[in-house]
Amino acid sequence: MINKLTANIKKTEAPVVVGLDPMLGYLPDFVQKKAYEELGETLEGAAEAIWQFNKAIVDATYDLIPAVKPQIAMYEQFGIPGLLAYKKTVDYCKQKGLVVFADIKRGDIGSTSAAYAAGHLGKVRIGNSICAPFDADFATVNPYLGSDGVKPFIDVCKEEKKGIFVLVKTSNPSSCEFQDRISDGRPLYEWVGESVAKWAEDCMGDEYSYVGAVVGATYPEQGKILRRIMPKCYILVPGYGAQGGTGKDLAHFFNEDGLGAIVNSSRGIIAAYKQEKYAKFGAENFADASRQAVIDMVEDIRGAM
Amino acid sequence: MINKLTANIKKTEAPVVVGLDPMLGYLPDFVQKKAYEELGETLEGAAEAIWQFNKAIVDATYDLIPAVKPQIAMYEQFGIPGLLAYKKTVDYCKQKGLVVFADIKRGDIGSTSAAYAAGHLGKVRIGNSICAPFDADFATVNPYLGSDGVKPFIDVCKEEKKGIFVLVKTSNPSSCEFQDRISDGRPLYEWVGESVAKWAEDCMGDEYSYVGAVVGATYPEQGKILRRIMPKCYILVPGYGAQGGTGKDLAHFFNEDGLGAIVNSSRGIIAAYKQEKYAKFGAENFADASRQAVIDMVEDIRGAM
Repeated sequence: MINKLTANIKKTEAPVVVGLDPMLGYLPDFVQKKAYEELGETLEGAAEAIWQFNKAIVDATYDLIPAVKPQIAMYEQFGIPGLLAYKKTVDYCKQKGLVVFADIKRGDIGSTSAAYAAGHLGKVRIGNSICAPFDADFATVNPYLGSDGVKPFIDVCKEEKKGIFVLVKTSNPSSCEFQDRISDGRPLYEWVGESVAKWAEDCMGDEYSYVGAVVGATYPEQGKILRRIMPKCYILVPGYGAQGGTGKDLAHFFNEDGLGAIVNSSRGIIAAYKQEKYAKFGAENFADASRQAVIDMVEDIRGAM
Repeated sequence: MINKLTANIKKTEAPVVVGLDPMLGYLPDFVQKKAYEELGETLEGAAEAIWQFNKAIVDATYDLIPAVKPQIAMYEQFGIPGLLAYKKTVDYCKQKGLVVFADIKRGDIGSTSAAYAAGHLGKVRIGNSICAPFDADFATVNPYLGSDGVKPFIDVCKEEKKGIFVLVKTSNPSSCEFQDRISDGRPLYEWVGESVAKWAEDCMGDEYSYVGAVVGATYPEQGKILRRIMPKCYILVPGYGAQGGTGKDLAHFFNEDGLGAIVNSSRGIIAAYKQEKYAKFGAENFADASRQAVIDMVEDIRGAM
């Protein structure tokens, strides 16, 4: 899957991933209204609305981008119907040839991480049959529990040719509270980065490892250092756009081959029609606004590289 | 809810929580067979089997215990049907008067943590209606992203009178890799503990805070220190039994009032019938074996206090 990701990035010349984080507030009223008329102001209605919203955005952008990143929290908040919309979104994006990053940020002790890995990336055995419950391509993983919590994901990735991105330095303001704590002269995120680099070495695709890292665009200096620490890792870079990261902040996240990073934008793409810049599209053409926002983002990032 | 937890612990005189982590390997063959005959060797079949297993164990133990802790990974691995079994388990346990700890270990940046909190502990607004998707009582939260990731949970807890347990020092062997890193002379888990103690101060029930912590029974010395750092926090203590923690390791997790800690056992209770000690019950009476295992665990812990 890491080779498919690289191939998709080369084909589209767009190291970007669209974050499918459909908060209800991002959805045009007419999308919500239609779903509520069919299914009521219920969890099912909300799930239908976000699925229709996602589908329109994927249809309008899939030829421009290598990958999507559904944030599972935005589906999970609508309970079982929401998770059904998540599953439909994952399946639909895969049909469209996109690589799907499940932004699940799971992580637990051994057998529990193994269950998450099987459920989201792998397969479960039930009696004599084998099922692939969510079947995404990559998942994000939280490292707080140490290698016990990460290795079960790596085992499944090896078996299934999938991948992970381990949280190293997150894009939010308070990521400093624990991630920046200095230990033996270096911040914690560097120690996590060193571990990720070690895990990655043993998990190589053709050019890059299928064990990658998450480092926020909002921390470009730290990104520069982490790029060196983890040369063979893809860095998934959130925080571009709405969170404040700009194109010029991104240059150091890439390797000299122009690869090794993939930049996420969620709100900036999926709710583009709400920005003054794209207001001319109007809410009814929200997906066209998203397409234009992807084109502009790709141009911004290419300019910075 | 923190007051209900304390009341339940006082009533049962049992500071224990049963971990409902139904791995298929724990289920007697006859439970699986019956479900597969009805629904096939499918995700639906597996979900039905774990639900029937849970129900029998809850029916056999609910009068002895204050709380249960379903580990959502064990349900999520069976996709949507598994999550339906999770939801049924949460609802059923609440009906039985138990406090439900959702062991979800979620944690993300602001709005995403807010979505998890709304989905698992709180409510979501859809048009003019309000829904409570999973509606557990407490949730476990991962602190790696700092206060941005934790405070949205606290906000929902305030609103809904729910609670959280923040991971501080986890029970697994590799928890040392990052949690034990020394910074300014103290391990990271102490700094996380200091933050938890601060968050907890502002979130008091009658005697204890509804912001608690997770500290593994496998680290009794660290537990002693963290007990002092977080005097008003309940400590959720995993790692008793199958993971190696014993009754005598637990004494220092409690305050002098005999409260302030609640000890989890999962496998040791729900798969008790597989232990030599409880083999006399036989697989067909697995729930009776679980009841006896609860009685023995409570006695062991009371002896240590």
